[in-house]
Amino acid sequence: MSNKTESITDVLDHIDRNLDSSVERLADFLRIPSVSTDPAHDEDTTRCARFAAGMLEEIGFDAKVVETDGHPMVLARCDGPDPDSPRVLYYGHYDVQPPDPIELWDHEAFDPVVVEGEQGRRIVARGAVDDKGQVMTIVEALRAWHEVRGGPPCAITVMLEGEEESGSPSLEPFLESHKDELAADVCIVSDTGMWDIRTPAITTMLRGMVYVEVTLHGPSSDLHSGMYGGAVTNPINELTRLLGMIHDDEGRVRFDGFYDDVVETTPEMKAQWESLGFDEKSFLGMIGLERGQGEAGRSTLERTWSRPTCDINGIIGGYTGDGAKTVIASHAKAKLSCRLVANQDPDRIRESIQSFFRDNVHPDCRVEFEDHGCNPAISVPTDSHWLASASSALKDVFGVDALLIGTGGSIPAVGSIQSILGIDSLLIGFGLDDDNVHAPNEKFELTCLQNGIRSHAAILDAFVTKPG
Amino acid sequence: MSNKTESITDVLDHIDRNLDSSVERLADFLRIPSVSTDPAHDEDTTRCARFAAGMLEEIGFDAKVVETDGHPMVLARCDGPDPDSPRVLYYGHYDVQPPDPIELWDHEAFDPVVVEGEQGRRIVARGAVDDKGQVMTIVEALRAWHEVRGGPPCAITVMLEGEEESGSPSLEPFLESHKDELAADVCIVSDTGMWDIRTPAITTMLRGMVYVEVTLHGPSSDLHSGMYGGAVTNPINELTRLLGMIHDDEGRVRFDGFYDDVVETTPEMKAQWESLGFDEKSFLGMIGLERGQGEAGRSTLERTWSRPTCDINGIIGGYTGDGAKTVIASHAKAKLSCRLVANQDPDRIRESIQSFFRDNVHPDCRVEFEDHGCNPAISVPTDSHWLASASSALKDVFGVDALLIGTGGSIPAVGSIQSILGIDSLLIGFGLDDDNVHAPNEKFELTCLQNGIRSHAAILDAFVTKPG
Repeated sequence: MSNKTESITDVLDHIDRNLDSSVERLADFLRIPSVSTDPAHDEDTTRCARFAAGMLEEIGFDAKVVETDGHPMVLARCDGPDPDSPRVLYYGHYDVQPPDPIELWDHEAFDPVVVEGEQGRRIVARGAVDDKGQVMTIVEALRAWHEVRGGPPCAITVMLEGEEESGSPSLEPFLESHKDELAADVCIVSDTGMWDIRTPAITTMLRGMVYVEVTLHGPSSDLHSGMYGGAVTNPINELTRLLGMIHDDEGRVRFDGFYDDVVETTPEMKAQWESLGFDEKSFLGMIGLERGQGEAGRSTLERTWSRPTCDINGIIGGYTGDGAKTVIASHAKAKLSCRLVANQDPDRIRESIQSFFRDNVHPDCRVEFEDHGCNPAISVPTDSHWLASASSALKDVFGVDALLIGTGGSIPAVGSIQSILGIDSLLIGFGLDDDNVHAPNEKFELTCLQNGIRSHAAILDAFVTKPG
Repeated sequence: MSNKTESITDVLDHIDRNLDSSVERLADFLRIPSVSTDPAHDEDTTRCARFAAGMLEEIGFDAKVVETDGHPMVLARCDGPDPDSPRVLYYGHYDVQPPDPIELWDHEAFDPVVVEGEQGRRIVARGAVDDKGQVMTIVEALRAWHEVRGGPPCAITVMLEGEEESGSPSLEPFLESHKDELAADVCIVSDTGMWDIRTPAITTMLRGMVYVEVTLHGPSSDLHSGMYGGAVTNPINELTRLLGMIHDDEGRVRFDGFYDDVVETTPEMKAQWESLGFDEKSFLGMIGLERGQGEAGRSTLERTWSRPTCDINGIIGGYTGDGAKTVIASHAKAKLSCRLVANQDPDRIRESIQSFFRDNVHPDCRVEFEDHGCNPAISVPTDSHWLASASSALKDVFGVDALLIGTGGSIPAVGSIQSILGIDSLLIGFGLDDDNVHAPNEKFELTCLQNGIRSHAAILDAFVTKPG
């Protein structure tokens, strides 16, 4: 441990000694199947909010579960040692992705297990890292401050959302109606990744997203392909024809105006990314691939950090059981999402997606859209004293500099917190690329959990002892 | 009733008087969910074979259920009034399509109901017309001959298959191993349609089929589209890209060599089809469509009777539940079938389909195929004395000439019966275009059932009293 963390040796030691208890509390959190997109789990999701509020009450917070039009919000506050203490707002989410495809999990998705992996012990369950494990890096850091010092070194507000995985429809109304209670000097979000297991990172660029579901309706009922095949519109033929048109031969997205507002990556930025020593072969090899696929002439980091994309996330139509059925389906549907970069207007892109389908579809097919939310890309200021303090604390904990990186994912809350509360966020997370986020066997390395807790404890100390 | 049927007035009257009992027996047949493609229904399918054999035993047949490698075959024989009687072979199938999508049925698919429709009473259930209802037109005609005259006017063999809806894998081995028992002078198949409810038809052209399931495997597990989107292959993007390439802008299929062996429809044939007075607007309007979609410059009858096609019958991949999930799926699959016309070689077409996917797929995706059977197109001779006798009987029953037509559907058995047993088939069926074959609320008009029974009774009489 370096000199700079000597002042909180007691807190950090407490964290290390109590890691097993932290893991047990995380496992309890993970046992609640808080799948926000599935109405069958509505009760679980509410139960999960109460569980999270209970954890915060236990460590000296005034915590409450606030009803919204969707899943409830957890809001907890505690004051600092004196009235002049800065106030830190933490944002995280207690909801998780659906566990599908269930059959590919080695264990039950909601019955967490700790197993030995190549990098030590890891906890495996849906939500292990996204975002319950990361939320626990914050909660357990606050617990250590509470148990060792009687409370954190500054004022704290914790806000945990239950709709992050389903488009955050209630977040902005909640921010608007709780502006006073949420006022803070800086926000910290733990929902991103490290550079690798030894190197911490602060994420300063986040892509935005537009998520649309499109359904094509053709014949009024399913038809026999023998009687009708070749003479009438087949909604699956038609849907795949349209989806197949989305990318051109260079891997560019063809929605009208899609690239109009995209800012070209600067040569300086590209040079900086080159210097990161990104291992593309290992990045792809980890997921069983060799070449990558995307916009021609762009590197993998550029493709995922600073270029907009379109992925079809799901598709279904016709007969999908075993064997053969010679049917022409009456309808077919696909879910698709575009990752957006700085300056792209999500509403305009959504309009363009809808026009693409409306303008190109055969007149015997009717197009229907369901909107699953959208949010713009985010750039976080890199010159704040908060970021400088946090970087310094991360270096103390890890012994190496924290890298400033981009990420392909979206955290809509960051944009809303900026625009509604006027608070900039620091995106400091402890996930790894191989954590199987949104996939079967999602996991969180216990090393990452432990270093995450230590980091959050040290960052709070740095905010009050080394402000900028 | 015309003069020509006077000789069997007693048989026809018996049919009319006992129609309600015929409907009850059909309902019992329909209650058995003999879905051949679904292993969960294997016991039901065997039970259905026994039920069919039982019906034939009841009316004087020596009937048995013969095990195969798949679902059993029903084989029943009875002799004619004298050793010189011609022998007629009937072919039908007792298996049915899956009832999906179940939620679109007005009643339980396997709990038949008789309801009043625009054209009188109809029976609604999976298999109502395809093919249980049509099998019953044969069985009830034979029952009438049995009950009124003590037996049919000629020798009869009945063969009922249980795998017609799943590619008939056991049919050819069965024909090979039962050649002697199946020897006959002519075969009659009731699995096709009428021209309209007042006009009988004999089908003389049947399209063939190749049915293939293709699966694309990409990443070794599902991925987060934020972390990987735009940089790695997405099997759904890739599958839709490939499926979207199948048809060109003129609606022609792009598989290599697909049209090489297709014989162009002759001007004479086109002229004959024009004269049929086909009402395209009503054909399309019945299924909620207006324009039709297919090969440019071809009429709807030509598209469905004499042109090859490719339809995607099912597709699935990624997240298909409610709401949004930002996933890149590890794999995606589609079921697709081509309808073939005379001279196209099904094996060669299947090869061409597989090459299309293998040659065009991104190298990070692996292609896997599952074969769901294939069969060539069939043309039935139109100059036989059997066809002349059957036409004459149909005219007697309906009072109008039977039309010679084509159909887009496939009945693989007809080709196998020709090639292995050397017997030509007469395709005489009583379905209507709006019967919802392979779709929810499949139905059979009781008028069609009754006229079908009367027709089969009269055809047998015509075979012995007016041979050619």
